[in-house]
This record gives sequence, C-alpha cells and structure tokens, in this order.
Amino acid sequence: MGIKIPVDQEPSGSLHVADLARLAQATTPRLRMASETARTQSILAIQSALIEKTAAILAANREDVEDGRRASLSAALLDRLTLTPARITALAASLETIASSPAVVGAIEQRSLRPDGLEILKTRIPLGVIGVIFESRPNVLIDCAALAIKSGNAILLKGGSDAGRSNAILGSLVRAAIAPFLPADSIQVIPAGDRRLTLEMVQLNGLIDLIIPRGGEGLIRMVQENARIPVIAHAKGLCHLYIHADADVDQAIAITMNAKTQRPGVCNAVETLLVHDALAKTLLPPLMAKLLEAHVQLRVEQPLLDLYPQLGLTLATPEDWDMEYLDLILSIKLVPDEDAAIAHIQKYGSHHTEAIVARDSAVIGKFETAIDASCIAVNASTRFNDGGELGLGAEIGISTSKLHAYGPMGARELTTSRYVLHGSGHCRR
Amino acid sequence: MGIKIPVDQEPSGSLHVADLARLAQATTPRLRMASETARTQSILAIQSALIEKTAAILAANREDVEDGRRASLSAALLDRLTLTPARITALAASLETIASSPAVVGAIEQRSLRPDGLEILKTRIPLGVIGVIFESRPNVLIDCAALAIKSGNAILLKGGSDAGRSNAILGSLVRAAIAPFLPADSIQVIPAGDRRLTLEMVQLNGLIDLIIPRGGEGLIRMVQENARIPVIAHAKGLCHLYIHADADVDQAIAITMNAKTQRPGVCNAVETLLVHDALAKTLLPPLMAKLLEAHVQLRVEQPLLDLYPQLGLTLATPEDWDMEYLDLILSIKLVPDEDAAIAHIQKYGSHHTEAIVARDSAVIGKFETAIDASCIAVNASTRFNDGGELGLGAEIGISTSKLHAYGPMGARELTTSRYVLHGSGHCRR
Repeated sequence: MGIKIPVDQEPSGSLHVADLARLAQATTPRLRMASETARTQSILAIQSALIEKTAAILAANREDVEDGRRASLSAALLDRLTLTPARITALAASLETIASSPAVVGAIEQRSLRPDGLEILKTRIPLGVIGVIFESRPNVLIDCAALAIKSGNAILLKGGSDAGRSNAILGSLVRAAIAPFLPADSIQVIPAGDRRLTLEMVQLNGLIDLIIPRGGEGLIRMVQENARIPVIAHAKGLCHLYIHADADVDQAIAITMNAKTQRPGVCNAVETLLVHDALAKTLLPPLMAKLLEAHVQLRVEQPLLDLYPQLGLTLATPEDWDMEYLDLILSIKLVPDEDAAIAHIQKYGSHHTEAIVARDSAVIGKFETAIDASCIAVNASTRFNDGGELGLGAEIGISTSKLHAYGPMGARELTTSRYVLHGSGHCRR
Repeated sequence: MGIKIPVDQEPSGSLHVADLARLAQATTPRLRMASETARTQSILAIQSALIEKTAAILAANREDVEDGRRASLSAALLDRLTLTPARITALAASLETIASSPAVVGAIEQRSLRPDGLEILKTRIPLGVIGVIFESRPNVLIDCAALAIKSGNAILLKGGSDAGRSNAILGSLVRAAIAPFLPADSIQVIPAGDRRLTLEMVQLNGLIDLIIPRGGEGLIRMVQENARIPVIAHAKGLCHLYIHADADVDQAIAITMNAKTQRPGVCNAVETLLVHDALAKTLLPPLMAKLLEAHVQLRVEQPLLDLYPQLGLTLATPEDWDMEYLDLILSIKLVPDEDAAIAHIQKYGSHHTEAIVARDSAVIGKFETAIDASCIAVNASTRFNDGGELGLGAEIGISTSKLHAYGPMGARELTTSRYVLHGSGHCRR
C-alpha cells in the first residue's frame, strides 16, 4: 500500500485526458451493440497475445523492476511490480474464466406480466466509461481491461509510474488484440508519471461515469477529495474474527491462522481477534502458541498479559483497536458475550469482512443481522472475501461503500439495470 | 416543478440537522435487527393513523393552501399542495401495497455452493440513513417514510415551506404511529423554510448515506453542487417516441395521444415525436388532427409545414429538440429510418424513457440495444415508467443516472447486497 503519485516525472506536455476520454466515449454506442461473441473473442485474443508476447512483456517489466530497485522500492513493492512466466500464466487463466462466464450485458434480471398483458423486463446494460487508477501491479491493467470488455464498457486505465513500461506494452497489446472485434479506442492507457493527468481524469464529469481508485489511502483520499464523478473506493480492511464460547476448537484455530498468516499484507486479513471469556484458558493458550510460532506479534489487554506473563505478549494500547496492521500483528480482546463482540465491531469495523466461529445458530443469526459489512464469514476465513474466491472471475476492486456495489466488483457490478416494456398499444389509464 | 427554497423565512435558530441525523443514525442497528413483522405493523399503523386523523390533516393542509393562495402560487402548485379525502384514501392504499409487498431486507439474491462445500449467499441489507429533499406535495412524506421503513433505513425528510403545516402534522403522525414497533427517531422531519438547513443536510458526510432530491432543476442543481454525500437525482425527462414505417396505425395514434396528453406536466410525458418518412402522408395527418384537437401545439420542420400549410403548425427551431416542454407542446421530426431516430435520441435524449412503435423485431431489437435510457417502451406509452405502474408499490424518486439505480426507485433500491459465507472451518488455500 502507500502509493506515491510522482509529480511531473515524465511530463506529458500537451496531452489531455479529456481527449482520450472523448475517444473512449465515442465507442460506447458500438460497445452497447456489440455481440457477446465479439466480447468473448476480444478477451481470448488478449489471452493469446499475452502468451505469444511473454518474452517482450517480461523484458519491459525487467526494466521497470531494475529502475525500481535503483529507486530503492521496498521488497514488497518490487514483488508487486514483478511479472513472471507463472504470473502471466495465471493472468491468462483468469482471462479464460472471465471470457467463459455468463454474459452480463443484456442479462434478464426480472420478467413479469401485468394483468393487462404489458410485459416488464429488467435487463442489464453497461455503465458507459469507467476510469481506473491503480498502483504498481501491472496485471491489474489486464484484469480491468477484460472486465470492461465483458461488461460492455469503455475504460481509461491510469497506472503507477513504477510500472510505466510494463503498462505501456500491455496497453498496446490489449488494444491490438481487440481491434478485429471491438473498437481499440474503447481502451485508453493514460501515460504514467504525471499527477496532473490523474487530477484531470477525476474531474471529467460527463465523459467518465465512474472512477475506481485501487491503491493506498493517500491515492484514495486524493481521488475522493478532487473527484467530480462518482467514485467507488475501497477504503480499508480492519477485519475482525469473533470466536464464540461454543466454537469448534480446531475450526477456530485453523481459521484464525489462515485469516492472519496466509497473506497478512492484504485487506481481507484479520487484524483483531475477539475471544469469548470462557475460552481464555482453553482455546487461547494453544492458539496463541501457534500464532507466536508463526511470528505473529500479539497485542493484548492487561488481564491476558497477567494470565500469560511468560508468553512474550505485548500490551495493547487503545489505538490498536483502530489499526489495520497489514502485517504479522494481531490484537486480541476478551469479550463477555456476542453482544460485546458486535458492539466492538460496530465501533471499530471498516465494513469490509467480519467473521464468526460459533455453533449456536441464534448467535450466528444475531451476528449476521447486526453487523454491517460487505462480507460476513461464518465458520470460514476472512480471506474468502475476494472476487476470484466468490466466483466473479476477477475483480476490478472491492467496494467498502454501500451504494451501487458492496464488496468485490466483477463484470456484473460494472453494469446497471433498466426496464424494457413490451406492449401491444398499451396506454396508461 | 421550479421549487423555491426561501431563505430564513422561518428562522430555525440553533437547530442543527446534524443532531437530527445523529438521532436517526443511532437507530440503524435496531432497524437492521427489526423483524419484517415490525416493519409491516409500522406501515399499517401509519395507514390507520392517516384515516383516523384525516380531519386534522385536511385542516392543517387547508391553512397551507390558503397561505399559498395568498402568496399567489400557481394553480399547478396549489393543486400539488392540496390534500383531499380522495388523495388520503389513495395514499392509504399505497401504504397497503408497500406493507404487503415481499420483504426486501434479508432477501436472498443469490445462493451457490463451492466444490469445497463453502456456501455463498448474497443478501440485501439497508443502506443506513437516507435524506430526501422534496417539494410541495405532502404525500411524498408518507410515501418516503413507508419506503424507508420497508427497506430498513432511517430517513431525514425535508419538505418545502409551502407545505410546512401539512408536513409537520404528517411527520408527527408517522413518528407516533411507528413508535410501538420501531424507533420513532428513525424518521426525522426537518422544519421547512430554512435554506441553511438544506445546505447543512447535503454536507453531512458520515451521517447520511444517500441524498435524494425530488423537485425542479434549481433544487437539484443546488443539491448536486453542494453535496458531500452521494446524490441520486432525477435530472429531466426529454422523452421521445419513434413511429416506424410498419407501425400499427391505431397503436401509434393511441400511444402518442396517451404519452403527450394524459398528463403533459410530468417527466415521462413525450416531448418529441420521430416519424418515419413513409408515414408523412398516411399516419401523420389523422394523428396531427387528433393532437391539435386536444390543444397540443405542434412544432415541425419546414418540409412538414409546407406539406400541411392549412393545419396551423408551428416552425420548430433547433432549440426545440432540446426542450422538456412539460406542457401541451410536441415537436415532430421526420426521419428516413430507425438509425436516424436512434442518432437523434442519442444526441438529445435524457436517459429517462424512450419509446418505439414498430412491428419488425430486428428494428425493435436494434432500438432496445442502441438506446441508453432507464426505460425502453416498445409499443407502449412512455407514461408507464413509474414506480406504481412497474410494480414497485411507490417510488422514492426516478434516477436518471446509472450508478446504484436507474429508473424508478422503490424499497429494493434503498438497499444494497452483501455476501454471507457459511463454512465449516473453511480456509483459503
């Protein structure tokens, strides 16, 4: 996380995003009328091109990575920036999934017949032009382009300057690949490294219908403060896991370990563990031992510290309940019942993913109803709140705000629904 | 239309909308956990109270209407402001419809099982706190309150100063009626007549989740320019009707008359008629005669004027294609084919309602796919794009923007969907 937007690193002179947005917008009538076959062929053509051009892509990416190393990017950022043959193979596979998933454009959501014979259909149509502003991972460009194609939208893609060469070659490849089937101008890649262009982009009211920022808090705040277009952002993921008194011990331990350690740097990793008092001397000792063994720092309140002085626990401060660590750190709090766990989550949760391990269906039902989050995981890891895991193929982002989409956004979430009425001279009385 | 927002007509002193919004927001956990029975009982209790208190409501409304007459409100505005026993009966009936419609809160939209046994549900939950800013019709308060209750949301209602007394009595009635079943504070009525309060309301980011302005262009522009919260607005309804060469003549005439004259002052009335050239001497003469007989002014291009010099047609100016008349005026344009009709609508349409009368299914299909509007009416009147007609019970507004909702918004459109995962110790690999 923590995306820098360098100012004028590679000045783009007289380039205006508005001109590119106009080119994209001009393709939207053709995109609306395109066949599903043309969309599928376009996505599969990108897949073939990725495989054919792997060597050239890796070469361009290697230059970006070398620049990044010279610029002393962190190991985590360098890892996100790096493409490998395996990552390109995985990307090609996700294109296959998107291409073969059911059509979203034109999908009929609802059909009814009034007593007077008027047929009412609700069908899905594209939004128009989407703008995505993303950070170092260049595979985001491919995923977002494919989701835009699937959903019948034009798209403007603005990547980070770290991945400038990688994004440029991927952008050219995508435009060339789709040209036989769909207008190449429906995909526009904005040159990297000029913050002026990002600012211009988020203010193009009337040309872009939706802005999706994917990156650190700084980028998202900048976009939200400057946008004159609707923004769907993924704010943060301060996810909790509540272990109820009657939880299956093995499940509770496995889920906690998975939610915290499988990939601690991502938004759907757990940050705070809420444990029922009754488990302080039963479940907690073996669970904490396993976490410590996995190099997880544990931040706890005084009573737990007093109970286990020998374990090397850390005293939590009030600020800990508000922290998205994105690291091998876990805060642990004992709670007297599920109501206290719910109250804690209502106070500190970020509407991302909240999990419970419990057997009592009344407790589970109360948790599901009381908690306002894009995903509630019952006896399952928080890590499942992800477009790929939930069957969306790929995701263009995860929304933590409730309007339009809440949670992972796939192709369907890039469309809207409208009414189509079929009558035979029907008039209103 | 054309809502005035008087400044400090009845100064509200130290009242802050934020305080009312906080009271409303504090009820949202209880609203999420309320039973569907409590929601139904609340709506039916409002219905009973409306009928019981009809005399008092009509008396308060009479004072508003008398004030309006003294302030020389137009006849149309006075009509919108006036409540009658029949209107209250109709309002009570719409409450019955909302109460008896299927539950939206908790509705399961999607259910699937992964090969590993993890169950994925997508269920609907309330948005939180809605703010509605509306104009003179006091029945809007009742409709919006009922839709908020049905959808599990808290609501802030800010009516126009013209209907100050009517809204005050209706607001008290609603709060008292729901109190035995749901928190009265979930419904907040903002006092009329202070523009400062409207401005404050649209900036309460973090307290209100969605603002819906219902009124004239002035109100909507003011809200959009000042809002710090997502706004779903109904911009304008410049609706077209295209009559294709092969149209059924009787249907074409009936639909045109209905779309233009049944209620010309509303957003889903037709403003521009596009007629295939082939019909200039067949369908058009009897159609124009009927329209003129119904006192509709017809604005046409030179060729039609030359063809029918004796009919009293008016020459259209280029501005006419851009006009939402909301009156007994219709512009008529001859087009050579459906492509020209589509191009005209793409240029001048307002994404509200677009209609076609035709028999050829290829032409109809092309029209449906090419046109971007919240409702496409095929061989049916534009007047059907309305929450009541489309089966939503009532509408809180009609959205002409595509994000979140497009077209009439009922209770379902005041909710969002989230994922619920049911596992048995599931961890991500």
